[in-house]
Amino acid sequence: MRMYDIIRKKRDHSTLNASEIDYWIQNYVQGQIPDYQSAAMLMACYLNGLDEREMLFLTQSMVASGEKMDLSAITGIKVDKHSTGGVGDKTTLVFAPLMAALGFKVAKMSGRGLGHTGGTLDKVASLPGFHDDFYGQDFLDLVQNNGLAIIGQSKELVPADKLLYALRDVTATVDSIPLIAASIMSKKIAMSSDILILDVKFGNGAFMKTPEKAVELAQAMVEIGLESDIKTAAIISNMESPLGNCIGNSLELYEAVQTLRGQGPDDLSKLTLVLVKEVLSMAGKKQELEKAEEYIKNGFACEKLLQFLQAQGADISSLHKEAKFPLASYQIRCLADESGFVRSLPAEQVGMLAMRLGAGRQKKEDKIDPLAGIVLLKKPGDWVEKGEPLAIIHTNHEDLGQKAAIDLQKIFGIADEKPVLPPMIYGTVSESGVVIDGYK
Amino acid sequence: MRMYDIIRKKRDHSTLNASEIDYWIQNYVQGQIPDYQSAAMLMACYLNGLDEREMLFLTQSMVASGEKMDLSAITGIKVDKHSTGGVGDKTTLVFAPLMAALGFKVAKMSGRGLGHTGGTLDKVASLPGFHDDFYGQDFLDLVQNNGLAIIGQSKELVPADKLLYALRDVTATVDSIPLIAASIMSKKIAMSSDILILDVKFGNGAFMKTPEKAVELAQAMVEIGLESDIKTAAIISNMESPLGNCIGNSLELYEAVQTLRGQGPDDLSKLTLVLVKEVLSMAGKKQELEKAEEYIKNGFACEKLLQFLQAQGADISSLHKEAKFPLASYQIRCLADESGFVRSLPAEQVGMLAMRLGAGRQKKEDKIDPLAGIVLLKKPGDWVEKGEPLAIIHTNHEDLGQKAAIDLQKIFGIADEKPVLPPMIYGTVSESGVVIDGYK
Repeated sequence: MRMYDIIRKKRDHSTLNASEIDYWIQNYVQGQIPDYQSAAMLMACYLNGLDEREMLFLTQSMVASGEKMDLSAITGIKVDKHSTGGVGDKTTLVFAPLMAALGFKVAKMSGRGLGHTGGTLDKVASLPGFHDDFYGQDFLDLVQNNGLAIIGQSKELVPADKLLYALRDVTATVDSIPLIAASIMSKKIAMSSDILILDVKFGNGAFMKTPEKAVELAQAMVEIGLESDIKTAAIISNMESPLGNCIGNSLELYEAVQTLRGQGPDDLSKLTLVLVKEVLSMAGKKQELEKAEEYIKNGFACEKLLQFLQAQGADISSLHKEAKFPLASYQIRCLADESGFVRSLPAEQVGMLAMRLGAGRQKKEDKIDPLAGIVLLKKPGDWVEKGEPLAIIHTNHEDLGQKAAIDLQKIFGIADEKPVLPPMIYGTVSESGVVIDGYK
Repeated sequence: MRMYDIIRKKRDHSTLNASEIDYWIQNYVQGQIPDYQSAAMLMACYLNGLDEREMLFLTQSMVASGEKMDLSAITGIKVDKHSTGGVGDKTTLVFAPLMAALGFKVAKMSGRGLGHTGGTLDKVASLPGFHDDFYGQDFLDLVQNNGLAIIGQSKELVPADKLLYALRDVTATVDSIPLIAASIMSKKIAMSSDILILDVKFGNGAFMKTPEKAVELAQAMVEIGLESDIKTAAIISNMESPLGNCIGNSLELYEAVQTLRGQGPDDLSKLTLVLVKEVLSMAGKKQELEKAEEYIKNGFACEKLLQFLQAQGADISSLHKEAKFPLASYQIRCLADESGFVRSLPAEQVGMLAMRLGAGRQKKEDKIDPLAGIVLLKKPGDWVEKGEPLAIIHTNHEDLGQKAAIDLQKIFGIADEKPVLPPMIYGTVSESGVVIDGYK
């Protein structure tokens, strides 16, 4: 077998078989195939596509390039979750403690954020003392004892993904549905959970701009999950405007705590419960949804979050009910310059603004300011009077904050008429197929 | 400007402008752009194509990556020729002396052969003493004094082509018409001739398998030539079966000499005169075609070939009329195993067979046996009796020759009915457009 012939086959729109894809991936990881051949191959895959079987083979080969997590020593049903990323997306921090409260085990590997979307690890790392470097038995123990652990990406799992992603990043081959699906699913399959719930977002602040594209990606991923014996489903959710009211790492952690105490924003609470419901349905435990609501009311779910954070070394004193939550030095109001309904609040622009405030990274090397961010006081559909605050900028740099307040005002779209807003959830992709929840 | 954005533009079917293409080429040649980005770019160009303007910009950038030959010191009209390659294609060795006899100047840079097609340099290098390493004033003097010189590829001219070709060769991006056109034409434009005649071949033994594809490539190249102020035209010629009767370096040189003496095969003589006629037409000297025929009859054209070979150091004693031409140790007959008309003789298979005899290179490092080859005694359309020889294998290895004789017999297609053979010339592509000579 020669890499040249495999490239030519994909170039000529032929379908690759499992051994051809595996030859590429294993030899590339071992340094036997040069970057330039993989780059040409990636562009051929990007432009000519991969069918369902090729996608599955690619995912399996990527998993086979490294080790697999062995969670068999952990009792109970292991659940994993993945979000394709959005602005203000702290759903994992509400979802995972809730699942742990329900007796599930969440063993999660998570990444750092880049660009206008944040990473779960950055949010929990905003607490002093939090560690994400637990390996082997230590990690298993954390999951077993607390029902939940979140650690950083391991180099032993799916080394092919790290290499391929770095190459895609410089060859303009990132936004290809088959390549995205294989990248995400290889890491999820290597985690060996029993159930996987995917939150595939669409809209202005998401990678997929339309619900149709999000469904396409979700279908690819669910198919790969099911073929790999993982109960998999995807919720297609709206990311036109930011999720919840808080954007910024420490602020988002705080909002997650509030949501677990039943005081969170509607969209975040709704999305979390839809994800939980879908997992319970896959686990054959639909009737436990009531318990989830109960565990929010009685504080048990929130206790699970605090327990997990403390177990991973975090100082959780600021998260206690009566504690004063630490804030950035300056809170600068962004005021409405006209009265009207908030018509739009494009998530990507808000995310970019938060990134410039220090809440996110432009480049991998950038340092994050955990306290920097934005608290939205008005969201699409809300009425605002001229001069009333639309949002509060949290920053440690007053001049940066003043400028951000001016910029943010321009991002808010204001209209005379109350806008008709699309619901949070577009549909569900599961073993039973695609169900669109009357979105349009 | 970033290479990433240029790749993305081509990936998304946008048209690149001159500065984007130039950014790619110059930075790649200078080592500022890595192979993997050029590889992804080449695959995007391969799959999404380049329009006429992009092809021209690419060619011009490639020319600008190195030096240009300055032929201005040479008097007279400078003519260059390029063949896209075929089996038994010794046309340059007939054409160039004929043009020199007519007072034109042929300053030619030529390559070595690879695969089933031969290179002009290998054919002349079959004579002891021949040199191809003349540079600067020495090269100009040879052309001025003999009307004709052929030298090897210079590293100073079009370095981008060497780099890009090596990368295309390992990334399955060779057979793309825009990339082929830019590669050929960049080298021709760097030679700065006044007139360029292209012999674009189609059929079994050619790179382009159909006449339509050959016309497409010819149109691209003629367009680039004309835009670069070189009078350019292309002849679309048949390469279903080998050209002439001889395949193999020394044998082909001998056949070229015989053709210049008026004793060559019809197809080769015809093709050469069509090329000469087209050049004379571009030079505004149509009436001199009679002279060409006269110079063959009176031996002047053949003298020009011998003069050029001797000037470049070759011992031409074996080419004199009464001299004994050196042959390989064994001449093995390939006999017909049935009577009938030769229906087909696929050029590629014949070329591969000759290559295995040592007449060509499988890999760049392979050594050539100048005396090895095949002399065809029967060509498509000829009648052959069972037991009559179809061809003679020339070899220095008897066992290799015996095996080749058996293999060659199977390559000949024999039929009861006389086949209807297509003519040698399919058409012409010139400034006036495409003219198809009633081929079908």
